[in-house]
Amino acid sequence: MAQVLSQLPKTNDKRVIVGPSTSDDAGVYELSSEVALVQTVDFFTPVVDDPYLFGKIAAVNSLSDVWAMGAEPITALSIAAFPIKTVGAELCTEILRGGAQILAEHGVALLGGHTVEDEQLKFGYAVTGIVHPKKVITNAGAKVGDALVLTKRLGTGIISSALKRKKASQEAIEAATASMLQPNKAVAKIMQQLQVNAATDITGFGLLGHAFQMAKASKVTLKIYSEKLLALPQVFELLADGIKTKADRTNSEYLGDAVEFAAKVDVLTRSLMLDPQTSGGMLVSLAKDKLEKFLTELHTAGVEATECGEVLPLEDKLLKVEYGKI
Amino acid sequence: MAQVLSQLPKTNDKRVIVGPSTSDDAGVYELSSEVALVQTVDFFTPVVDDPYLFGKIAAVNSLSDVWAMGAEPITALSIAAFPIKTVGAELCTEILRGGAQILAEHGVALLGGHTVEDEQLKFGYAVTGIVHPKKVITNAGAKVGDALVLTKRLGTGIISSALKRKKASQEAIEAATASMLQPNKAVAKIMQQLQVNAATDITGFGLLGHAFQMAKASKVTLKIYSEKLLALPQVFELLADGIKTKADRTNSEYLGDAVEFAAKVDVLTRSLMLDPQTSGGMLVSLAKDKLEKFLTELHTAGVEATECGEVLPLEDKLLKVEYGKI
Repeated sequence: MAQVLSQLPKTNDKRVIVGPSTSDDAGVYELSSEVALVQTVDFFTPVVDDPYLFGKIAAVNSLSDVWAMGAEPITALSIAAFPIKTVGAELCTEILRGGAQILAEHGVALLGGHTVEDEQLKFGYAVTGIVHPKKVITNAGAKVGDALVLTKRLGTGIISSALKRKKASQEAIEAATASMLQPNKAVAKIMQQLQVNAATDITGFGLLGHAFQMAKASKVTLKIYSEKLLALPQVFELLADGIKTKADRTNSEYLGDAVEFAAKVDVLTRSLMLDPQTSGGMLVSLAKDKLEKFLTELHTAGVEATECGEVLPLEDKLLKVEYGKI
Repeated sequence: MAQVLSQLPKTNDKRVIVGPSTSDDAGVYELSSEVALVQTVDFFTPVVDDPYLFGKIAAVNSLSDVWAMGAEPITALSIAAFPIKTVGAELCTEILRGGAQILAEHGVALLGGHTVEDEQLKFGYAVTGIVHPKKVITNAGAKVGDALVLTKRLGTGIISSALKRKKASQEAIEAATASMLQPNKAVAKIMQQLQVNAATDITGFGLLGHAFQMAKASKVTLKIYSEKLLALPQVFELLADGIKTKADRTNSEYLGDAVEFAAKVDVLTRSLMLDPQTSGGMLVSLAKDKLEKFLTELHTAGVEATECGEVLPLEDKLLKVEYGKI
């Protein structure tokens, strides 16, 4: 689909601060010198069995794209494809109720939505946020010498996939669900306070896909240390058992030859880095002298975070995955 | 689905000027004392065979909900479910290209979008517009004594349905396509100039469904004269041949016993009034002393429009369909 989209005419509208061309988390439109709109849309098939929790996760996931730009979400529209005859109205209501609960918790007004009957259940939101035009945090601002920080553990895609095949452990399901339910709001707030250089949330393209987009948009090379990455419970076992998502292949194709892996980085870790996340963590690029304060504040806010790499001048490869720790 | 949505908790956010409870064309959120956001989302299966034209119609249809509130659309996000393996990437690109063309023509910035692979092709947009908070035109302002005006002819649902069964004439297809491609922008501009009392665009719930929503929101009864309604070519023949859309039944169920039909209103005309429209016309309620000027200006702008009814004090039935002309 990236190929399809790239064939569309580019906009030269000056009010568009961030458009589709940099594959950022959301588009940004300058409404006035004081206010920019930050807009995003996402919807997907269930990642957990409980419809109420799925609705909550869909909402957190969509809000996350707005937080990733350093903005505050204000409104949402629901997007629902429901096989209402198969699953029943009650289940659909539970999904909507879960989503509405999260929106209400974060002061986001649900303005409407569109629902179609469909064979395959899909749900999500189009969300709008606001931010001062000068305070937008994009994926295009990573600077040479920056440290890279990743929040949350990786592996929600693999666990969701295992869940559908009834191979996920209770511990893995609970940990993945808790991770997907955790809003990135606190991270966004700290990012703004410390004025980080770039950020993106990790979703469908996996860590490497979104790191690739950041590297490309920022015109730098990102170095990532494989042994610094944290995985959710059971993820490596599931990978060793051959559980894969379709995105393991498509994300790899998306990256093409943009990544150089150190020989010692094993195939399981490579798959982890390609794993599509739902409501994933944030990859943040910031000046090294702010790193300690950033990590401390994140930990104080209860956010698991790890320094996972650094920003290099642009090389032949946009991404370099090193074995070992920093 | 209306039943599902009605079970959601109601918002009491003061910034929400129009929320989901009045079934209006779009939600409205007061961003400041000067600017309100008008937001809507819609997507649907193809209504014409040509992918480029389908993309255009999807865009016009989505913008129409913003125009129906008297607002100016500024940004859009695409929503695409594409069976890319079945139909090919070129066809998908054509849809996106058609939509992008319409957005560009109306100065609307495409900020992003979400695409999923799906068996059944669906496409549309989430659109945001702006309007002064005091100038929002809702479906809740119809006043007793108002005249009702309907723009465009009815019958796009029946013709699309016939097209899928290869029963639509070339003339009908061309007329329906031209109608769906016609933006309601000029209508919106004239509505603002003349300060009409209420408006809604006619889409999935058909003329009667949207008239019902207006009557309910405005706490009035709407009287519609069946013989004033204009149909696209071949529509009555197709109806007489038994061509129906699923919405003929579901829209009838949605209305329940809210409509009183004069005995002489035949079943074909009843079906016409229930026909779900894509990118349909506008139903406008305005003071009778403005009617002549409104119709003249619409006709000057090349918009087909007809006085089709009037607003009565709230009676037992929210809608009364009379046989004959005014």
